[in-house]
Amino acid sequence: MAGSIFGEKFKISTWGESHGAALGVVVDGCPAGLPLTEADIQKYLDLRKPGQSEYTTSRGEDDMVEILSGVFEGVTTGTPISMIVRNKSQRSADYSEIASYYRPGHADYTFDAKYGFRDYRGGGRSSGRETIGRVAAGAIAIKLLSLFGVKITTFTKSIGPIDINPANFDESRILTDKLRMPDENASIKAQGYLDKLRSEGNSCGGIIECHIDGVVPGLGEPVFDKLDARLSYAIMSIGAIKGIEFGDGFDVARMTGSENNDSFASKISGSNFDLTTDVYKKTNHSGGVLGGMSDGSQIVFRCAVKPTPSISAPQRTINKNGEEITVSIKGRHDPIIVPRAVVVVESMAALTIVDAMLMNMGNVIKS
Amino acid sequence: MAGSIFGEKFKISTWGESHGAALGVVVDGCPAGLPLTEADIQKYLDLRKPGQSEYTTSRGEDDMVEILSGVFEGVTTGTPISMIVRNKSQRSADYSEIASYYRPGHADYTFDAKYGFRDYRGGGRSSGRETIGRVAAGAIAIKLLSLFGVKITTFTKSIGPIDINPANFDESRILTDKLRMPDENASIKAQGYLDKLRSEGNSCGGIIECHIDGVVPGLGEPVFDKLDARLSYAIMSIGAIKGIEFGDGFDVARMTGSENNDSFASKISGSNFDLTTDVYKKTNHSGGVLGGMSDGSQIVFRCAVKPTPSISAPQRTINKNGEEITVSIKGRHDPIIVPRAVVVVESMAALTIVDAMLMNMGNVIKS
Amino acid sequence: MAGSIFGEKFKISTWGESHGAALGVVVDGCPAGLPLTEADIQKYLDLRKPGQSEYTTSRGEDDMVEILSGVFEGVTTGTPISMIVRNKSQRSADYSEIASYYRPGHADYTFDAKYGFRDYRGGGRSSGRETIGRVAAGAIAIKLLSLFGVKITTFTKSIGPIDINPANFDESRILTDKLRMPDENASIKAQGYLDKLRSEGNSCGGIIECHIDGVVPGLGEPVFDKLDARLSYAIMSIGAIKGIEFGDGFDVARMTGSENNDSFASKISGSNFDLTTDVYKKTNHSGGVLGGMSDGSQIVFRCAVKPTPSISAPQRTINKNGEEITVSIKGRHDPIIVPRAVVVVESMAALTIVDAMLMNMGNVIKS
Amino acid sequence: MAGSIFGEKFKISTWGESHGAALGVVVDGCPAGLPLTEADIQKYLDLRKPGQSEYTTSRGEDDMVEILSGVFEGVTTGTPISMIVRNKSQRSADYSEIASYYRPGHADYTFDAKYGFRDYRGGGRSSGRETIGRVAAGAIAIKLLSLFGVKITTFTKSIGPIDINPANFDESRILTDKLRMPDENASIKAQGYLDKLRSEGNSCGGIIECHIDGVVPGLGEPVFDKLDARLSYAIMSIGAIKGIEFGDGFDVARMTGSENNDSFASKISGSNFDLTTDVYKKTNHSGGVLGGMSDGSQIVFRCAVKPTPSISAPQRTINKNGEEITVSIKGRHDPIIVPRAVVVVESMAALTIVDAMLMNMGNVIKS
Repeated sequence: MAGSIFGEKFKISTWGESHGAALGVVVDGCPAGLPLTEADIQKYLDLRKPGQSEYTTSRGEDDMVEILSGVFEGVTTGTPISMIVRNKSQRSADYSEIASYYRPGHADYTFDAKYGFRDYRGGGRSSGRETIGRVAAGAIAIKLLSLFGVKITTFTKSIGPIDINPANFDESRILTDKLRMPDENASIKAQGYLDKLRSEGNSCGGIIECHIDGVVPGLGEPVFDKLDARLSYAIMSIGAIKGIEFGDGFDVARMTGSENNDSFASKISGSNFDLTTDVYKKTNHSGGVLGGMSDGSQIVFRCAVKPTPSISAPQRTINKNGEEITVSIKGRHDPIIVPRAVVVVESMAALTIVDAMLMNMGNVIKS
Repeated sequence: MAGSIFGEKFKISTWGESHGAALGVVVDGCPAGLPLTEADIQKYLDLRKPGQSEYTTSRGEDDMVEILSGVFEGVTTGTPISMIVRNKSQRSADYSEIASYYRPGHADYTFDAKYGFRDYRGGGRSSGRETIGRVAAGAIAIKLLSLFGVKITTFTKSIGPIDINPANFDESRILTDKLRMPDENASIKAQGYLDKLRSEGNSCGGIIECHIDGVVPGLGEPVFDKLDARLSYAIMSIGAIKGIEFGDGFDVARMTGSENNDSFASKISGSNFDLTTDVYKKTNHSGGVLGGMSDGSQIVFRCAVKPTPSISAPQRTINKNGEEITVSIKGRHDPIIVPRAVVVVESMAALTIVDAMLMNMGNVIKS
Repeated sequence: MAGSIFGEKFKISTWGESHGAALGVVVDGCPAGLPLTEADIQKYLDLRKPGQSEYTTSRGEDDMVEILSGVFEGVTTGTPISMIVRNKSQRSADYSEIASYYRPGHADYTFDAKYGFRDYRGGGRSSGRETIGRVAAGAIAIKLLSLFGVKITTFTKSIGPIDINPANFDESRILTDKLRMPDENASIKAQGYLDKLRSEGNSCGGIIECHIDGVVPGLGEPVFDKLDARLSYAIMSIGAIKGIEFGDGFDVARMTGSENNDSFASKISGSNFDLTTDVYKKTNHSGGVLGGMSDGSQIVFRCAVKPTPSISAPQRTINKNGEEITVSIKGRHDPIIVPRAVVVVESMAALTIVDAMLMNMGNVIKS
Repeated sequence: MAGSIFGEKFKISTWGESHGAALGVVVDGCPAGLPLTEADIQKYLDLRKPGQSEYTTSRGEDDMVEILSGVFEGVTTGTPISMIVRNKSQRSADYSEIASYYRPGHADYTFDAKYGFRDYRGGGRSSGRETIGRVAAGAIAIKLLSLFGVKITTFTKSIGPIDINPANFDESRILTDKLRMPDENASIKAQGYLDKLRSEGNSCGGIIECHIDGVVPGLGEPVFDKLDARLSYAIMSIGAIKGIEFGDGFDVARMTGSENNDSFASKISGSNFDLTTDVYKKTNHSGGVLGGMSDGSQIVFRCAVKPTPSISAPQRTINKNGEEITVSIKGRHDPIIVPRAVVVVESMAALTIVDAMLMNMGNVIKS
């Protein structure tokens, strides 16, 4: 469990530190025959890169990807796809100070406790930049899924106290909205809220929701490798995510069986009835997963994102000598992690679904 | 991803169906030298077995475990530990009917969609009896952890609308309480609520909370194999669990950075300061995990358990011909899954922590 | 690497000691829909059980298998298949003595060095009885492969100095021959040789050869998971095997490129030419594998089996106090391991091929 | 089993094609605290690079390595170590022709059969250049092992019909000898033999032997993950290797138990006797492994390397239309693979031992 490899058959191996020479990922297990260009990858990296708005750090990172292997004449060959993003000369000076103490809410302390020391520059491996490899690999997974009719829609459901109004849901504006909100009014309110927090040197959290459409029923394995268990593993492995729920999620704790159960129905019946294409559910409290396998309905999950821990407001902590001190985190930081995390959540979801599809092959003897 | 094997180094392979000849588990990777008897295992199986109270199914299952290998003269040998629980003659008649249709909230449909058919007797592999193997293996993990000073406390936090009152928290009564609630008043209220539901042929959900104490800081791997990601994978793999959260969990979505960050403090400072033993946090919003690694504070998570899907109240669904029908689930079913799931949650948590401890070895070169 | 689990998708988890309550295996990842009965398994267990001739130990072991899960109404369900073989009351007395010293050629010393102690009864986990689980699982793999036209033929190529004469190769007699030799003359000579060794309280080694026919070209992964690398891992994991070679094997060290290269040819050419079905090689020096992938020719490998280390002739060794002593191994032992190992080799080969076939699925995007 | 990842805990993920932009490897699971520079890696890459003598291809490849992550201030951090070697502009023209047919002894056909097409430039992923990643990762493993007193010595045992004379064994000259032979006379003879083959446009095979000293007894897992099974998997995954044997290897097939068993002895006896440090074997027929675990003696294995399949002498094969043709492989090729493969074998052996050491941790409860 070295910890930087994800997937059973569609395996990704990410690497790189915030202020190292570069970051990247190796994708081992991508099927041969997929048309792939650097533009396919760049499109998604651009959605996570900083400086997209006043709500994302203004660090000047281009994050241009280069594909180094696994693609021949524009098509994947079935061999490992290595992708790299060079770090531009980072201002390590910004970080020299934090080498001496432990930032609240960060992994500084746990890294030192585990390894005895750490690459303190910009958080090193625990920096949000680690997700570059996830997004680059996720872009391939998303393209693969599109060939099988699977579509993933991920958006910001809430920021601090401001929730989107489902009645105003406008998918078309997600990628253009500064906060990835599908509801313009909510986005404007949230921006005002964030402006205030920023002026106070503070930050806030939010909720990201993900919808996965087009997954055939029966995906996922019955016991430990349930589809929702694998998705939870994938999403909870993203820094700053503190919880995940499927369908009615935590609300089921207050519900009764008659409220929570979804009735099955069928488009047709009789001799032409097809179990895998004609069945639907009248409701979707389950969030598209039953017994760990996709049930043909939309897969729905939400995850909670904690506030950016880097805040300029004064905080108490200790230095490496165990002395209590007051610190104020300098540097350029996002007042909210959510908007840039949306594409990361979508990437991890796509990687999980692709892996489940590949692992599902051969589960039954076709006569 | 055949799906019935869990763990990287402390691997468990569970097997068995509700109405098959037996159920069991093989534990591969348990260190040699652990004193182990069948009584150590039986103690935990008894906590999950049915018929413990009017709130758990009265099916007469003894679930007596037999250790078949891996233990010599009362001590583990380092070779696989095989444990088996024979099924007593089950009344398959109870289940012949459900072979023909898809129970709402169950895996009947997804199994058929995936495999084309299923062992319909008592839910087959998707039955709650599948957790027998998890609990038997978990008992070994819990005993191992106790040698390293790790203690896990798992309990019922809420049932339907009734929450425990933290002020009344009484750990000593968890295992004796019919509902595994550490608050007598809450338990009495919940029992009344359940009595009413049962009379209506209904069921309800609840929340289970788990506290893990004594974990050294630095456990868990920084990227994909974060300790909270592995725990989420383990817990979400339990049937009926629809969500999990750590520390402040979903509440972080409404919090600010200054509210959510935990300040570090030290018991002592200066030359005797020890990073791994002297540091503590003044609060524990993080739930004991930072950057995917244990931070030395109590690890805290909660998971949402859905209502028992088997209810006698009439429900609409379809049969194998796609015809809509109304069904009423017969047989003896728990009106609430939570009490018996508590030990399953504790087992999966223990298995995850033991595995993380074994995988953490050798992460640093000790000079 | 707990070490008792084999396979990436068709995973088997074996367990059990020579003198424990039972031995067995859990097969996780077997496709649903395979007709399977205990007779299918017993047939292969009978080929490895002792007492088949004067050249195999006369220990009275029936080794009757029981299928405990994963099969419903005579067909595999896609869930784990657990199989168990009870040990009959073993005469542990036979083994009490060897607890005190280290038998030459056995794992007694390495077990103690690794774990500090061992289950010394009949070799415990390192006993040949460990292979019961491999053969039970292998029987399923062999039946699966037959559905895909893959046939495995395994036999004794040599015993001590006696080799079979390819000109006399008679496949039909392999399973009936006491020594699993396809050449009657060689078998008679070998039996005479073994009679002499037995009278001297000695033993000898031999070579097992395996032919795999019907494997489509392209099976196996290009780099680390080459088909021959996976087969070598599987075969070398069998106790007593000291070497393996494919095709011309070690002879290639003396050959030139023009001698060793196999020329490709085609049954037809032109528009109807099919790359996967029409190509053949005029020779098969490669043993059916090129670049780690099957090349459509017969897969051929040989493995060397060491002499039974348990011999009654006096040997020097040390006891647990480090004192040198002379020992004579009592008990009933095979003068030759080869005949009973033939089915074990075939089982491991089958498990490897099935796993490679399942892992090969989805390697290319089918349009 | 995507196939380009090796190791359970010390995991390496290699990538890259012969004529792609670059080749490299990501090492996930290297312990923190190891001093590491690019010079440590380059030293081993230089041993495999072409153009070292007239017996290795004269392609002008510098193969300069760059470390992109996982090292901070000259020490490994415990995070993934990414290493890259840029390909210099390759003359793809050399290879355009072979795109149309299948070279005997190469993976051209099996790649097309598996994927439907291939990167034909210089063999693409099946090129010997794939081993650059193995050697770069192996260099780290070798440095790690040196800290634990483990030393690996790998050399050319034979080339064609010429064997080294053990009596002349001179370890000091291995790395300076053009053919990596520890026997000057044999090397001179072999060079003459190779000169003749080259003039004929032919090639030949040979044998590489590897000695591993300093491994504590008890390394390796008893059943499937035997140390010799893992080493066989690793070594057989190297292109051109057709067989492997340990200790007496295939000779055991002709030996008797009394000849093959190694007697245990002890340096001392009595109260000071230490099982793990005082025991030795009077002989080493086992090659340092008993029951799949290291027995404290030198680990010895040999592997057979086939002749370079690329020869300019005319050969018969087929083109993509299934038409038989005669070809003569152009380009610059080694007349012998062995000398450059020596460091690859040593690298794979080191990676296997390091992984086994890490997986061995925690196998016993230390009180």
